Amino acid sequence: MAMQMNYCSECGKSLTCLIPPGDDRSRYFCESCGTIHYQNPKMVVGCIPEMEDKILFCRRAIEPCYGKWTLPAGYLENGETVSAGARRETFEEARARVEILAPYALYNICYVNQVYLMFRARLMDHDFRPGSESLEVRLFSEAEVPWDDIAFRVMEETLVQFFKDRATGLFPFYVGNISKKK
Amino acid sequence: MAMQMNYCSECGKSLTCLIPPGDDRSRYFCESCGTIHYQNPKMVVGCIPEMEDKILFCRRAIEPCYGKWTLPAGYLENGETVSAGARRETFEEARARVEILAPYALYNICYVNQVYLMFRARLMDHDFRPGSESLEVRLFSEAEVPWDDIAFRVMEETLVQFFKDRATGLFPFYVGNISKKK
Repeated sequence: MAMQMNYCSECGKSLTCLIPPGDDRSRYFCESCGTIHYQNPKMVVGCIPEMEDKILFCRRAIEPCYGKWTLPAGYLENGETVSAGARRETFEEARARVEILAPYALYNICYVNQVYLMFRARLMDHDFRPGSESLEVRLFSEAEVPWDDIAFRVMEETLVQFFKDRATGLFPFYVGNISKKK
Repeated sequence: MAMQMNYCSECGKSLTCLIPPGDDRSRYFCESCGTIHYQNPKMVVGCIPEMEDKILFCRRAIEPCYGKWTLPAGYLENGETVSAGARRETFEEARARVEILAPYALYNICYVNQVYLMFRARLMDHDFRPGSESLEVRLFSEAEVPWDDIAFRVMEETLVQFFKDRATGLFPFYVGNISKKK
């Protein structure tokens, strides 16, 4: 589950793996300076940018899933709130300004140590264009969504959930899991 | 904002700080092997363990805030879901079994690069006792809460919000920020 680490970031010596006293899982440990290198999941924050009945999608200009469509999202940075992170990613990928409305869905993706937090958001104007990580940025109505070309399962599930909720007009906060494909 | 890193965990050479091409913030970078060492916020997961009108608190046996009261919570581990993390922390700190009911509140604590996610939970029985990080574990009614001895502001705010919502019977998912004290 842990990301490979070879050397101690404190002192530069080689690391070993062990279960520290009082702990219950294996950690990278430096026998030279005593540092335990904990590793924890990363948060990915993003949004569903809505304008009237349409949603703003980005077509990826980078791997993985080059050429596929996704919602704007990316790693939360140190020092930023989850909603600021979602706004920043939307601007980076789609050069679009959104007003974050509410947290909408959280997905555990345990096998890659990620937690996705997706917000509902209102696209503020038509002034958007591809950022450096996007080939194309487009508004799609529900009928136009390119279901066979969605980049990530977490985005597909977010969208399915969103359109289901939109039909009812209620958007309760949702928690889901994305499991490794068999 | 970044945690100090001296050496590259890939190759063991010294690190420098720079803004990588196409990036907009400073990262630790290894000129020897080219690795960029991204740092991201950590998630803390915990719960409000309810039994009838009472809440289970833990008195801390460790610093920071030794001797103060808190709700069970701790760092989310790789490979676990947010609710499994909250259950695990509750068992570690209070040897208590809870049923996680719903996500309740998310707090950004940007100045320490943490995101707290607190759940509502049902304490399943009276079989609880201090884990190794707790001096004492106790059920408090709202009137009994030791407000002057709560360990962390995020827990104080979670509890204030919770009792306010409990009075209405509605628990909408809440997002808040904890700022650095002036």
